[in-house]
Amino acid sequence: MSAGAREAVEARVAAAIRDVPDYPEPGVVFKDITPVLADPAAFAAVVDTLAGWYAADRIDKVVGIEARGFILAAPVAYRLDAGFVPARKQGKLPRATIAESYALEYGESTVEMHGDAIAPGERVLVLDDVLATGGTARAAVDLVRRVGGDLVGVGCLLELSFLAGRSRLGEVPFRALLTA
Amino acid sequence: MSAGAREAVEARVAAAIRDVPDYPEPGVVFKDITPVLADPAAFAAVVDTLAGWYAADRIDKVVGIEARGFILAAPVAYRLDAGFVPARKQGKLPRATIAESYALEYGESTVEMHGDAIAPGERVLVLDDVLATGGTARAAVDLVRRVGGDLVGVGCLLELSFLAGRSRLGEVPFRALLTA
Repeated sequence: MSAGAREAVEARVAAAIRDVPDYPEPGVVFKDITPVLADPAAFAAVVDTLAGWYAADRIDKVVGIEARGFILAAPVAYRLDAGFVPARKQGKLPRATIAESYALEYGESTVEMHGDAIAPGERVLVLDDVLATGGTARAAVDLVRRVGGDLVGVGCLLELSFLAGRSRLGEVPFRALLTA
Repeated sequence: MSAGAREAVEARVAAAIRDVPDYPEPGVVFKDITPVLADPAAFAAVVDTLAGWYAADRIDKVVGIEARGFILAAPVAYRLDAGFVPARKQGKLPRATIAESYALEYGESTVEMHGDAIAPGERVLVLDDVLATGGTARAAVDLVRRVGGDLVGVGCLLELSFLAGRSRLGEVPFRALLTA
């Protein structure tokens, strides 16, 4: 993609994100990406951009983080001819799981994956909508590595840089379409 | 798609679905679709089949029902050049919502949509992974109609026919890739 085309995508997507003050609690400004998803051109541009970053990486599995991460990870998996693997909240997966707990921006949580969802050596991409503190993404990365997956990187639509989530990912290659 | 190709897709998808006994509670056999999603060819076949059903319907928005519905609705929206709209559990959407409560197979719940997610007259498809009692799908249909959406139909990967969810949808056009 040319620099001009990339800037046009970024501008369109950035314009569609809505700031929602005092959600989920007073003093927090929530970044609502649903208008991006609802706009066919913006949604397609996001999927195409994320898929494009990893098109040469022979991705086997794309891990989507529940729930909004599913909305980007599933079409990117489809575009990359990869499989989709859900990283879910505790108790939502029906078979034997592995789990990692992590600190959220607003509390604490646990993320789980089926223990057989990724085979050793498979090339894995982790996607979420927003990188905030990075705790969820870090937990997903750790799950992928525990089962022997070859972690290619972590990608997202929007990085909230003031929360410094990128530092929590350490040496993991990380890309965001937009940074706020 | 030819009848033979359709049968091949159905056979591949059906073979990938796993029965999980006694989940989420004793006596229930849960249909685990995650192996379908993890298999690139099966996942693409499901997305292509669902998108193919509605390719001539000029769909504006595809509503995905949280959380597993997102995994099919998002790539189908992408394939149809449509927008994606999440129908979420209570309290998960940051702006003004409309809500419908419904009986689940295992309890009761409420589904919400942003009040401005669908414009009057837009052509809307509702997708979920599994149609069980049909309560969630019925609630999503009612939300779409309350905001003036033109409901084209409800589609899913798997219909659990013994739960008679289809009858709850009344006159709404309904399609399932597989019926168990």
